[in-house]
Amino acid sequence: MKRGAEQKLKDMGVTLPPAPKPLGAYVEAVQVGHLVFLSGTLPVEGGIAQFRGRIGGDLTIEDGREAARLATLNALALAREHLGSLDKVSRVVRLTVSLAAAPDFLDHPRVADAASELLAEVFGLERTSTRMVYGVSSLPLGASVVTELLLAVDISD
Amino acid sequence: MKRGAEQKLKDMGVTLPPAPKPLGAYVEAVQVGHLVFLSGTLPVEGGIAQFRGRIGGDLTIEDGREAARLATLNALALAREHLGSLDKVSRVVRLTVSLAAAPDFLDHPRVADAASELLAEVFGLERTSTRMVYGVSSLPLGASVVTELLLAVDISD
Amino acid sequence: MKRGAEQKLKDMGVTLPPAPKPLGAYVEAVQVGHLVFLSGTLPVEGGIAQFRGRIGGDLTIEDGREAARLATLNALALAREHLGSLDKVSRVVRLTVSLAAAPDFLDHPRVADAASELLAEVFGLERTSTRMVYGVSSLPLGASVVTELLLAVDISD
Repeated sequence: MKRGAEQKLKDMGVTLPPAPKPLGAYVEAVQVGHLVFLSGTLPVEGGIAQFRGRIGGDLTIEDGREAARLATLNALALAREHLGSLDKVSRVVRLTVSLAAAPDFLDHPRVADAASELLAEVFGLERTSTRMVYGVSSLPLGASVVTELLLAVDISD
Repeated sequence: MKRGAEQKLKDMGVTLPPAPKPLGAYVEAVQVGHLVFLSGTLPVEGGIAQFRGRIGGDLTIEDGREAARLATLNALALAREHLGSLDKVSRVVRLTVSLAAAPDFLDHPRVADAASELLAEVFGLERTSTRMVYGVSSLPLGASVVTELLLAVDISD
Repeated sequence: MKRGAEQKLKDMGVTLPPAPKPLGAYVEAVQVGHLVFLSGTLPVEGGIAQFRGRIGGDLTIEDGREAARLATLNALALAREHLGSLDKVSRVVRLTVSLAAAPDFLDHPRVADAASELLAEVFGLERTSTRMVYGVSSLPLGASVVTELLLAVDISD
């Protein structure tokens, strides 16, 4: 079961934020067999949504990348809360990145890569995910990024 | 197997609309093992798409909430048609709510909650879903909301 | 295992494009049990993204349909690369079509049908998918369409 994601986070000097609480009548994680579905997560730090606005408008690509990384850290916090330890993740199956972007924005992959690079660093390239990224017209609370993770775990763990 | 979702709908005085038919060369439900994937559903009543327009523009938050609830009732009608009974649902795994919203709209969670609250009432909080919500720039037929459900069933049922 | 998708493609005179490579730190396919998740695919031909722009604006419905078909051919190329043969697909579970569309665009189902019709022709109606389609405000590289497929395979194959 030891896969080293928790140790890796320590080595990186990363402390996860508190796991986000639902913004309504839903839950943050549901497991069905080997699959763990997580709700979408915002770039929240200290309980406050960071990097509000539109990427390619109010916000630069670099802002978007920091937002994507922060949203993914919140998703990892959710995963740890649900599973007890990130070491139980056998595979990151799917990452969805929704960006509130200017209509003429083209660099979605570069922004989404900040999320993908974090996942690859924590879990290793061999356990990294498929990806879907698009530019949406608005996101909850004016957020610039929402990430959503689907994980796989070994039931025998 | 008796979980009471059908009885709960009766107690609530809710009659589901007819299950929607595909708008093209696809199907409305696919089951793989324990998972039942449903196609996206629109807020249709009496065969007509209701609440067309843009939430936060032509439509109020309350309109959006009614649209989200109606789209979810259509999803439940699909689920019942596929499964025979909603009592077979062991878990609502994931709810996706796409809103055609004005670019400066912020209250996505409040609109999506109309869908989540309906699901929590019908299935109970302990079987409620993860959630993903975003504001898109347009939806089929000018709809203001599309909902999409992923369900889990016990195969032994 | 012989289900005829590969033969069907030959009969249709269709040659799949080369399987797309990731645009960042992610992978193109992840299998968990019976489910095969694919990353989103763009309408790429000869290594170049085709049909850039906005459907209902710069691009006609017919352009959008060609883009949706081409993006789906790229998804099939991914599936073949991962599985070795499309004949291993027991079911197309879910098709997501994201369209970069003008805000007043209404004909999403007609555009998405070009993807659905291709899948129904290759795999047969009895193995065709659920569908989700929406209009987004922007897509990677200025693409007009991204498609995403979830497939099921028989593990015993």
